[in-house]
Amino acid sequence: MSYDQIELPDVSALRVGIIGGTGPQGRGLAYRFARAGVRVLVGSRSTERGVQAAQELNALPGVAAQAEGGDNAFACEADVVVIAVPWEGHAATVAELAPLLTRGKVVVDCVNPLGFDKQGPFALPVPEGSAAEQAATLLPEARVCAAFHHVSAVLLADPEVERVDLDVLVLGDDREAAAQVQALAGRIAGMRGVFAGRLRNAGQVEALTANLIAVNKRYKVHAGIRVTDL
Amino acid sequence: MSYDQIELPDVSALRVGIIGGTGPQGRGLAYRFARAGVRVLVGSRSTERGVQAAQELNALPGVAAQAEGGDNAFACEADVVVIAVPWEGHAATVAELAPLLTRGKVVVDCVNPLGFDKQGPFALPVPEGSAAEQAATLLPEARVCAAFHHVSAVLLADPEVERVDLDVLVLGDDREAAAQVQALAGRIAGMRGVFAGRLRNAGQVEALTANLIAVNKRYKVHAGIRVTDL
Repeated sequence: MSYDQIELPDVSALRVGIIGGTGPQGRGLAYRFARAGVRVLVGSRSTERGVQAAQELNALPGVAAQAEGGDNAFACEADVVVIAVPWEGHAATVAELAPLLTRGKVVVDCVNPLGFDKQGPFALPVPEGSAAEQAATLLPEARVCAAFHHVSAVLLADPEVERVDLDVLVLGDDREAAAQVQALAGRIAGMRGVFAGRLRNAGQVEALTANLIAVNKRYKVHAGIRVTDL
Repeated sequence: MSYDQIELPDVSALRVGIIGGTGPQGRGLAYRFARAGVRVLVGSRSTERGVQAAQELNALPGVAAQAEGGDNAFACEADVVVIAVPWEGHAATVAELAPLLTRGKVVVDCVNPLGFDKQGPFALPVPEGSAAEQAATLLPEARVCAAFHHVSAVLLADPEVERVDLDVLVLGDDREAAAQVQALAGRIAGMRGVFAGRLRNAGQVEALTANLIAVNKRYKVHAGIRVTDL
């Protein structure tokens, strides 16, 4: 068995909502999905800023599917909902949206709980083990996955970058949901969605972002990872 | 700045000792170093088994520098000492060898604190944060780095595998020591040693091995990682 032989589901009809779609990571992901022809619902705490972010996104080069904007509740109407908020507001935002993220909704957490001091970034302890597990605790009816931790917001947002060549590690306890997220990652030019374990192993994937930031600082790059032998 | 422009030190004269050189990872690393022409001191709890492991290694195809075997104390005579013991015996072994690992000795911890249950591997909590930080606590005079967590013992040990194509994430608070470890990793065909942060960010690198095991199980591969954009 190798990667190419894994059959991933057809996700061409799925809409992707972005909670925190006006932040760097959310905005960048929204742009890449829109370039890939995915219908994106850009969410923000304020409806006005969500609408504005979608308009700005639609004006960028290469957008193949017009995004729509609204508040975070609007983004929750999508088939797959990506949580891309700062760690500081993670628990509160997820708890607030919990009534909308029910009945098997696929939720993709891509939040990295990191702290920063004069020596650089470091992993913050999370009582639930990871941001993704915190989301899963707050959203017992949703199918929570973790993915898109290591994508550089700078590369995502740069219209001149045609391909973002890296693997997206996808974690989740629901294989069907994880496969959808893998397939969505695979729609973005250059990306491959690789299943990388259960949600209980999400903490180190989130925390590895601190190491990639160290790599970026040392080598002046925008590091991601590829899985070898795959 | 990019990876190729980083100047790494000349490590061609350095000897590498392997604590736990009869285990799968230690034996595999010893073989790869010997193939690369690095002088290896293979250590084991028993002198006899260390000597035997070195003899077996020297009989394998492609060995460019004959390894020597002995007990773990013998391996500590090397310039760079790799700790490749099972996590269960990590603290006891390191504490026992502490009197030999002093005065700025470069120590490379490659131990992954993992547990396994019916759902597969998971990261074990480590009071010090990581195996490497545990070693650093026990070896206050040594220059402790962390590296070689994600190398597949199967690939390392297979004489028919010419190149082990992956990046070795090297962590450490002593830049000079980390650079030596990066350079040593770079001597192994296919490998590149990438500086990936301070020792306080070693825990997630160790734990990521659980994710790579999940990848291996899912796709029937021997996964490692490459850092992109580098």
